[in-house]
Amino acid sequence: MEGLLFDVFGTCVDWRSSIIDAVSRALPGIDAPAFADAWRGQYGPSMDRVRSGSRGYVPLDLLHLENLETVCRDFGRFPDAPEDLARAWERLDPWPDTCAGLERMRSAHLIAPCSNGSIALMTRLSRHAGMRWDCILGAELARTYKPDPQVYLSSCAALGLLPSQVTFVAAHNGDLEAARACGMRTAFVIRPFEHGPEQVTDLEPSGPWDHVAQDMIELAGALAPAR
Amino acid sequence: MEGLLFDVFGTCVDWRSSIIDAVSRALPGIDAPAFADAWRGQYGPSMDRVRSGSRGYVPLDLLHLENLETVCRDFGRFPDAPEDLARAWERLDPWPDTCAGLERMRSAHLIAPCSNGSIALMTRLSRHAGMRWDCILGAELARTYKPDPQVYLSSCAALGLLPSQVTFVAAHNGDLEAARACGMRTAFVIRPFEHGPEQVTDLEPSGPWDHVAQDMIELAGALAPAR
Repeated sequence: MEGLLFDVFGTCVDWRSSIIDAVSRALPGIDAPAFADAWRGQYGPSMDRVRSGSRGYVPLDLLHLENLETVCRDFGRFPDAPEDLARAWERLDPWPDTCAGLERMRSAHLIAPCSNGSIALMTRLSRHAGMRWDCILGAELARTYKPDPQVYLSSCAALGLLPSQVTFVAAHNGDLEAARACGMRTAFVIRPFEHGPEQVTDLEPSGPWDHVAQDMIELAGALAPAR
Repeated sequence: MEGLLFDVFGTCVDWRSSIIDAVSRALPGIDAPAFADAWRGQYGPSMDRVRSGSRGYVPLDLLHLENLETVCRDFGRFPDAPEDLARAWERLDPWPDTCAGLERMRSAHLIAPCSNGSIALMTRLSRHAGMRWDCILGAELARTYKPDPQVYLSSCAALGLLPSQVTFVAAHNGDLEAARACGMRTAFVIRPFEHGPEQVTDLEPSGPWDHVAQDMIELAGALAPAR
């Protein structure tokens, strides 16, 4: 049985809508979309310090909290319970097709998230969203962040599979480039509204991906074993 | 939400009956119970070399294969496909109460295996046995074997919980002693036939465990939140 590894934020779950809702509740009257985008905007830079080795591995949960504090200072608004708001990343809703697509793919493949989120975060998020995996893999196993190749390679190894036996599924061309460079197969799922109605990135495949699908159900059909 | 970590071999699955069946098929006419017990007899000594640091971490899958080769030499019988037989540890059947008990416990707790088996082994075994976990933890995260405290502590940390927020469930008093020394709560599930009809060990609790149950369904009742 071969494997499928999934990016999660944006690919499986609609982080932006869920974070906007959580910010709106915690900071009434704020420009919640702008706040959500600013919070997510800190994501890459905060991981860069770990990826470059200038900071040891810390789980994404801590980066989310630190980044929230940064954005609160920028907006001049502070929630009563920042730790609770930071844990909104554990309560993101799936895209409508995600759970049904995963169920179908799980019937023929080993499936696991390979996210930058920690095991604790992915475990709680998966329960919230109803995503059933065979196991939870990703950044914490490698103690660094994607797109460091160690994240992809250590997750394949943890499945007991070669990279060539595993397909990486993501809505982000950059994630797929990194996976392909590790020898994995690739599947691009288009999520044109991950970044809201004005999204300009990742609207189409930019590389020779093995599969391109509009959603997880279409991908499940494409990956189903020949009968 | 608090956590439950489970020993697997013997506690959740009846390894001995399943291994006897696999040995009988691979080596017809052999004394399969004696062979199974001899194979399992190599388990502790092979891990000792990793626990003591005299050998770096290797996954249990490799130890099972090496130990199989040892026992084959002792019995003077060799299977056609030793790798396939070694993977019989991925196809162990659960005790009759296990899956129903886990389902009930999962409704109120985060549940995960904390076994000496690798993630790859536990992932496949869990699919075979129908055990649904929130994530797969255990020895591979710590890169050493129980009862090294790092295995228990790293699995609690991966759940994002303190040891005091996690109950360790096992059919082995020694496993519970080690978990308790790490600050975890403990639950003893009696498995009087793990080692066959002549079993003399672990027939009763030998320590002040927080719960003692005859099976996983009884334990699920004891751990259910008060209404």
